[in-house]
Amino acid sequence: MTASFSLPDVEPAHRRLARSALSRRSAAGELMAFHEWFAAESRRTSFEVRPASLDGLSGWHTDPGTGNIGHESGKFFTVEGLDVEVLGAARPRWQQPIIVQPEVGILGILVAEFDGVLHALVQAKFEPGNVGGMQLSPTVQATRSNFTAVHGGRAVPYIEFFRDPVPDRVLADVLQSEQGTWFYRKRNRNMVVEVDPDLEVRDGFRWVTVGQLHRLLGVDGLVNMDTRTVLSCLPIAGPGPIVGRGTGPYLRALRASFDPASGGAHQLPELLSWVTGLRATTDVTARRIPLAEVRGWSRTDGRITHDDGRFFDVVGVDVRAPGREVGGWQQPLLRPVGTGVAAFLVRDIGGVLHVLVQARIEPGFHDVVELAPTVQATPTNHPGAPPAFLDEVLSASADRVRFDTLLAEEGGRFDHALTRYLLVDAVGPDPDLPGHRWVAAHQLAELLHHSNYLNIEARTLVACLYSTS
Amino acid sequence: MTASFSLPDVEPAHRRLARSALSRRSAAGELMAFHEWFAAESRRTSFEVRPASLDGLSGWHTDPGTGNIGHESGKFFTVEGLDVEVLGAARPRWQQPIIVQPEVGILGILVAEFDGVLHALVQAKFEPGNVGGMQLSPTVQATRSNFTAVHGGRAVPYIEFFRDPVPDRVLADVLQSEQGTWFYRKRNRNMVVEVDPDLEVRDGFRWVTVGQLHRLLGVDGLVNMDTRTVLSCLPIAGPGPIVGRGTGPYLRALRASFDPASGGAHQLPELLSWVTGLRATTDVTARRIPLAEVRGWSRTDGRITHDDGRFFDVVGVDVRAPGREVGGWQQPLLRPVGTGVAAFLVRDIGGVLHVLVQARIEPGFHDVVELAPTVQATPTNHPGAPPAFLDEVLSASADRVRFDTLLAEEGGRFDHALTRYLLVDAVGPDPDLPGHRWVAAHQLAELLHHSNYLNIEARTLVACLYSTS
Repeated sequence: MTASFSLPDVEPAHRRLARSALSRRSAAGELMAFHEWFAAESRRTSFEVRPASLDGLSGWHTDPGTGNIGHESGKFFTVEGLDVEVLGAARPRWQQPIIVQPEVGILGILVAEFDGVLHALVQAKFEPGNVGGMQLSPTVQATRSNFTAVHGGRAVPYIEFFRDPVPDRVLADVLQSEQGTWFYRKRNRNMVVEVDPDLEVRDGFRWVTVGQLHRLLGVDGLVNMDTRTVLSCLPIAGPGPIVGRGTGPYLRALRASFDPASGGAHQLPELLSWVTGLRATTDVTARRIPLAEVRGWSRTDGRITHDDGRFFDVVGVDVRAPGREVGGWQQPLLRPVGTGVAAFLVRDIGGVLHVLVQARIEPGFHDVVELAPTVQATPTNHPGAPPAFLDEVLSASADRVRFDTLLAEEGGRFDHALTRYLLVDAVGPDPDLPGHRWVAAHQLAELLHHSNYLNIEARTLVACLYSTS
Repeated sequence: MTASFSLPDVEPAHRRLARSALSRRSAAGELMAFHEWFAAESRRTSFEVRPASLDGLSGWHTDPGTGNIGHESGKFFTVEGLDVEVLGAARPRWQQPIIVQPEVGILGILVAEFDGVLHALVQAKFEPGNVGGMQLSPTVQATRSNFTAVHGGRAVPYIEFFRDPVPDRVLADVLQSEQGTWFYRKRNRNMVVEVDPDLEVRDGFRWVTVGQLHRLLGVDGLVNMDTRTVLSCLPIAGPGPIVGRGTGPYLRALRASFDPASGGAHQLPELLSWVTGLRATTDVTARRIPLAEVRGWSRTDGRITHDDGRFFDVVGVDVRAPGREVGGWQQPLLRPVGTGVAAFLVRDIGGVLHVLVQARIEPGFHDVVELAPTVQATPTNHPGAPPAFLDEVLSASADRVRFDTLLAEEGGRFDHALTRYLLVDAVGPDPDLPGHRWVAAHQLAELLHHSNYLNIEARTLVACLYSTS
């Protein structure tokens, strides 16, 4: 055999960048400048969102036979019904509306190194379901219908860096799931791509350091879901400083915890075997059915609601927003009832930060179970019997709470979908419980190279781990 | 935070075992003893397989409405129809029969260390579609219907080690796909579990060294598909000797090639990005339809055939086999037309063995594309235009052929399904071609920790790489 070409440098680009880039902290003044920019962007963009009946949404159509709601182009998404069976579960069968969006979109962040510091290109972006209107979005968040211009809008800025990326400048590129109780098998491509710093910055976009972005996660309702999931997939490996300048035991543990050479309460093969076993033996059947046949839900007064007023509504909205790709439009949104809670119990085990993950079944998952926060629930959906750990995280004393921020889920599909994200120190021995395992921070990072291990709420919390300085 | 329990030893058990166990080679005498045992087992088990019409298979039922064939218990598998669309492909749409088997079975090998040498517990097992009747099978190969005793057979020996494994004795545990043109989304749990050497060896089972098992892969028709796929998932990492005592450049490269610290023509994130991009942008729709509606195929004379006599038939068989869990039974089998070819072009790049993988769409895959051999085809299905590399691997001079063995696919579902597996030295510059990438051997091993990266034929060839001494 002949060696006809040689090996490239084996140090991955992301490791070099992470080492060099995160060693400097953002000064408070720089964050002030960011907030001034963001406020100016918010003022610059006028928009108005009003309720609209599902019955007459412009561009949308209810199939008279099935009751399914879809766009006249056949693109974007549909609202259909789902019949779910989970053998042996406490709630073994139910039906519900579900959003079906088979297209794989792109959620992408461009990064570049300025003076040795890693920066991310973000944008201030309006979505109709956002509480405040504008949120901080990744460089690109686009469905395939968006970037193939089905709705006749303008071209998506910077999309070319993600549709046909230069292979050795890709730092992360992985399909990840989204809310499995609201979406049927939806996945987006989460990408981080490196560019040269001389890139032209277009209106509405701004470079921020990755360190600043981590800090901004702690601001209620600011960093949107798509930014959070992409940020969780950016590999931040190696023994160098990662977050914070503090020297307390928590920060020491956090820094060490993302070093792949650190150990863990369980070895990775053991954790993978746990997931494999659950997938092999859990019988979940999720069958798409006509929306009109879904039991326990009703469509009246131009919206769809659960008969007990729980879970979520499907509503219509009318949007006027001149700054957006299209000047105005109407669309359905899923509007959750109540505010969700997603929390990791965290602890130091042998000098390495661990989080207690839950193996969770959601009917829209691509592969039966994914790893979820220790507790993930909407308290108002469980009036009598709160799920395990819900009371513990909500009643934890302030000194145990490492992170506590109200963040919104995707405002292009969900209306005012707020989740309170918490990182709470565990107390007591807390061994593994049925359905839960302690997983080291660097093991989470390793799993995030691959699809379908961590659900969207767990990924937000992984991103939040970086901000706990 | 308090550290309430400490970390276990961080050296994974599989690495320790692999280091210690593969350093000794099987002597020729030991292989002779194996073959004598196998011949005796073959004589001990009498069985008879005769053709039977699909129309009157005992225990099986053809639905009068759909034409689908299923077992009266509702278990095992069904034969249904599939309507496939691949946007932009050379063959953008077709219909075909397909085996649907949603249950996840277990393919498991028990391993133990005897005097520092890793051994695997194998069995001589009959399957109705096997060419010679008996093949070498893993410790356990069982559908869930098997081990939950739907067909009233005897308990599956050693199943308890796999159904509820001791977590820190699991060396491999991963869901892997099977033939995506014959099965609809079938997956099996591939497991390797360590036990103590004092385990009772039951009739029909035998300990062989892992080194011997690698050697036996080179015997036509001996090691069955299930053994091969499990063997490919057994991590053989680290810098120690892996196979062979030779000192030639090929062997040196092979030994170094499974060391995770070796480089590669592409970094792993780049390869993952390639797979992600293909999955995100390839539009494959595979819709189950009634078997009776499949165009281009006919059911006549008690069998199903393609109208041009290509691809495969679906036939019935009548089995008498007293040594098996059930004394006799009838069942459908898929019988391929022609012998398949699956070949990797291999080469040394920078001292590390690489194989040229193909990103392949098969309609039954769980996730759009998987990595496949450089060429995977049945030549008789392509009379006019052979696929890329087929002629090259079939006409390679003998000194380029590192491995060339005729092996059978799963004899419990396929009748006389033979594939010629080849490892062939690449010549010339052979850069990456569209749809192909050079992947280092240790990268293949890393990907095999996870589901849905390497298809079943590629996994057989990974196992065969170990036997090329």
